[in-house]
Amino acid sequence: METHFSKEDEIYMKRAIELAKKGLGWVNPNPLVGAVIVKDGRIIGEGWHRKYGELHAERDALLRCGESTEGATIYVTLEPCCHYGKQPPCTQAIVEAGIKRVVIGSMDPNPLVSGKGVKFLEEHGIRVCGCLCNQECMEMNYVFFHYINKKEPYVVMKYAQTLDGKIATYKGLSKWITGSEARENVHKDRYRYAGIMVGVGTVISDDPMLDCRSEAIANPHNPVRIICDSRLRTPADSRIVKSAGQIPVIIATCITDKERICQYENAGCDVITTSPCEGHVNLTELMSKLGERGIDSIILEGGGTLNWAALKAGIVNRVQIYIAPKIFGGESSKTAVEGQGVESPADAYVLKNKCVKCIGDDIFIEGEM
Amino acid sequence: METHFSKEDEIYMKRAIELAKKGLGWVNPNPLVGAVIVKDGRIIGEGWHRKYGELHAERDALLRCGESTEGATIYVTLEPCCHYGKQPPCTQAIVEAGIKRVVIGSMDPNPLVSGKGVKFLEEHGIRVCGCLCNQECMEMNYVFFHYINKKEPYVVMKYAQTLDGKIATYKGLSKWITGSEARENVHKDRYRYAGIMVGVGTVISDDPMLDCRSEAIANPHNPVRIICDSRLRTPADSRIVKSAGQIPVIIATCITDKERICQYENAGCDVITTSPCEGHVNLTELMSKLGERGIDSIILEGGGTLNWAALKAGIVNRVQIYIAPKIFGGESSKTAVEGQGVESPADAYVLKNKCVKCIGDDIFIEGEM
Repeated sequence: METHFSKEDEIYMKRAIELAKKGLGWVNPNPLVGAVIVKDGRIIGEGWHRKYGELHAERDALLRCGESTEGATIYVTLEPCCHYGKQPPCTQAIVEAGIKRVVIGSMDPNPLVSGKGVKFLEEHGIRVCGCLCNQECMEMNYVFFHYINKKEPYVVMKYAQTLDGKIATYKGLSKWITGSEARENVHKDRYRYAGIMVGVGTVISDDPMLDCRSEAIANPHNPVRIICDSRLRTPADSRIVKSAGQIPVIIATCITDKERICQYENAGCDVITTSPCEGHVNLTELMSKLGERGIDSIILEGGGTLNWAALKAGIVNRVQIYIAPKIFGGESSKTAVEGQGVESPADAYVLKNKCVKCIGDDIFIEGEM
Repeated sequence: METHFSKEDEIYMKRAIELAKKGLGWVNPNPLVGAVIVKDGRIIGEGWHRKYGELHAERDALLRCGESTEGATIYVTLEPCCHYGKQPPCTQAIVEAGIKRVVIGSMDPNPLVSGKGVKFLEEHGIRVCGCLCNQECMEMNYVFFHYINKKEPYVVMKYAQTLDGKIATYKGLSKWITGSEARENVHKDRYRYAGIMVGVGTVISDDPMLDCRSEAIANPHNPVRIICDSRLRTPADSRIVKSAGQIPVIIATCITDKERICQYENAGCDVITTSPCEGHVNLTELMSKLGERGIDSIILEGGGTLNWAALKAGIVNRVQIYIAPKIFGGESSKTAVEGQGVESPADAYVLKNKCVKCIGDDIFIEGEM
């Protein structure tokens, strides 16, 4: 594989990245992939993986070329596949199209196939160059890269709090902590994830829909709603259960009583039973079962107890915190992470690669766990 | 007063601001003031108010001129005084020096004298221009502007917490939450304030010195240490009490028992008695008494109870929060503002004009209350 690139190569790869991101929220558990086909210094075709089960980016771009692709260069953000999945291999299509050069943004993270696409192309006399804009190409697919290796969802813990760390007043009131820009951002973000998880306490107290209501995104994809409910206390008449026919619901519980489970299944919910872990749902086991169901990512909007359990179980991969520039006070006001907590400051859960920005009046902090 | 300025005027005023800030921590309760004297396009003298009780900036600059000031321009960040205080009026000195033009950064905030300096100078045939770089000149003196109007200290509430709003683990351990850069910043900042205030709980549990230990500042000024101690529980053998001879200590209490008070007074502490307010020290009354003692600014490093009482009493003017990128968790872990707290999110204490930056690995948020 060659490793030299021109300025033009970079411009086309950036365009491919832009296209790839149009698939956000629609392709899970597949990766985001974009492709640009260039001939004689002009873009003759563009494509991206639009929806799970549909064409891969390379084929999508080839299909949209208005002229012969003979001798063209294709820029693709991920190594083309060379195996039969839901779609025939893209390497085959590239060879058949007479492409003479392939520029790649990132290698396939699956150790079983990584490099095989490149090898196939080179064996067919095609020049392969990579990896261009590698960091960007990998970063946009952090969910995919995690899922393909672990077979478990990538979990993003999200909460909104005041400057003194409160997620509600002592009366339990939390509408609203953050401003409208931050709240719109939360909704805009939900559709990127395959699932949204809360504790049963949130369902009982707030009766939320947990759908994706964004003004910025037309027809957004709704994540599967997952309720951690060790003792099956989810109200049968809650808005989530009543809308299970429209937006899928998974209830995770430790209850094994068939009759009680049936009540929810008849309402259209999927009930997952795990072994108990300190009296609660075993989150490690749950993640593995959710992974089996193809759920590659979860946004966790838990309360203090569930958030602590998730951190302790080691399932949290990323944290997103919105901080409103206000103070509630209150010795008994709830905070975002409760449970027992760590004993010594040295045992704290530490955020890496953090990013801080302002969204409206609020402060947004994001990082990896 | 003229209001037109040249590019050169701005350069000299910025220099005067730079000089003024050299007085930080030394001039309280006086304002920071800097002065630059320019003749024939050259700086011929520079000065600033160096220490409380010493020369004002204008006289300091005049004194340092190596040549005649006849016909020169003086740039001064605050309107020159025209009344006798600890020093004779600066307006008189300016007239005597033969200065022909005075450029002012901000007007005197004291309504009784504001504008009188300008009037005096103009009556003596001097061109006066203002206000140049007004916002900067006022901002650096926010403590002075507050104190001169209210006769009470400007209170800065400061705390360090985790991403989930904890100021200690559930075991009460808090060493350390933030990194070394943030801690150095806290010490570097302490010397700017006339006082540092904590609750007696902090003295009992941590036995701190509350002095200013900065590697960046040689021979820093130590703020007066103020302990809020409604029931006089401060240990007589605490480091603060034992060092009262070197760095002043004020104990604020509701106890009126002369014998108990004497014990602290004999150790060199100043004891202020206030009426009780919900069983605690009446902070409003305390601020008024501290103001009478010339304390123009306080950094409040309280725990959750004192911080809440200060907010509720309306004495907090500014908030400084260090957030470490880590999570402690813990239902019983202490948070920075406790007490009862507000009932509804609409009643929250809101931060204005906030500024967010990173200090080392930590996030620093500052704003006005």
